[in-house]
Amino acid sequence: MSVTQPANQIEHLRRIIREVPDFPRPGILFYDITTLLSDPTGLRIVTDHLAERYRGQQIDKVVGIETRGLIFGAPLAMELGIGLVPARKPGKLPFQTITESYDLEYGSNSICMHADAIGKGERVLIVDDLIATGGTLAAASKLVERLGGEVVEIAAVLELTFLNGRSRLGGRPIYTMIQY
Amino acid sequence: MSVTQPANQIEHLRRIIREVPDFPRPGILFYDITTLLSDPTGLRIVTDHLAERYRGQQIDKVVGIETRGLIFGAPLAMELGIGLVPARKPGKLPFQTITESYDLEYGSNSICMHADAIGKGERVLIVDDLIATGGTLAAASKLVERLGGEVVEIAAVLELTFLNGRSRLGGRPIYTMIQY
Repeated sequence: MSVTQPANQIEHLRRIIREVPDFPRPGILFYDITTLLSDPTGLRIVTDHLAERYRGQQIDKVVGIETRGLIFGAPLAMELGIGLVPARKPGKLPFQTITESYDLEYGSNSICMHADAIGKGERVLIVDDLIATGGTLAAASKLVERLGGEVVEIAAVLELTFLNGRSRLGGRPIYTMIQY
Repeated sequence: MSVTQPANQIEHLRRIIREVPDFPRPGILFYDITTLLSDPTGLRIVTDHLAERYRGQQIDKVVGIETRGLIFGAPLAMELGIGLVPARKPGKLPFQTITESYDLEYGSNSICMHADAIGKGERVLIVDDLIATGGTLAAASKLVERLGGEVVEIAAVLELTFLNGRSRLGGRPIYTMIQY
């Protein structure tokens, strides 16, 4: 739908992402993707860009991380013509689940997936809005692998490179569209 | 992408939605849409069906209700070529927000929207996975209207008609694909 070139499209995305200082805590600069979503072309640009990268790679499932990873994962899975698997916080998925915990700065968090969501040998793309410390994405990768799936790549719209999340992701392939 | 007729498509969706008894509480039958999402055609069928209904209706924004309403709202907004606005739980949206509370069986809950997410006079489609008691959707409608938007319709994939959520939605137009 867009007639601009890929480099211009990435620049357009950068421009429409809003920077909100001091969220969720003082001193933290938050990259607000809701302004990308409310742009009539933002989600289309992200989806077409990622679909072009993964089409023909025999991906079987897209895993979207609650909540923003599902917003980007859903149109991508639809565009690729494959299933979407939600990775969600505990207590949200109604069927039998498996769970992985990961450390936060203070305390820990957990993420869950349905136990029948990925078949043995399936090729899986994991999608989130952002790679920050990498904790959630490492846990989601372990869930996929425990079910016998292969993490073909982890894709995110944004990457906060100074947090070095890649170091926590165990050498799994990573692709991000915009780096800060 | 699908060659089947609309009536058959709705039947296909019914077949791929999983019924999970006793979730989230004993005695409740939960309609699990994760099996619809993991089907390679499920999200495409829902999106094409709703896009056909709303294309040409001059809708300006799709509001998706966290979390599952965003999974259906994102591909629909992309397909219609318009912006997506997330309605989220408190503490999740980084910019200035407005909030509406609604009653639950025990206690209450709140839902928020960015204060600049909807422009005055904009025509808005609200999307969720399910109409149950209608409390969340009534609160989301009020948020849209407080910002000067017009709720053109409330659309959901599923409706639990025995909970009579429509009675809480103040006569706003409602469309659902599958009724139980």
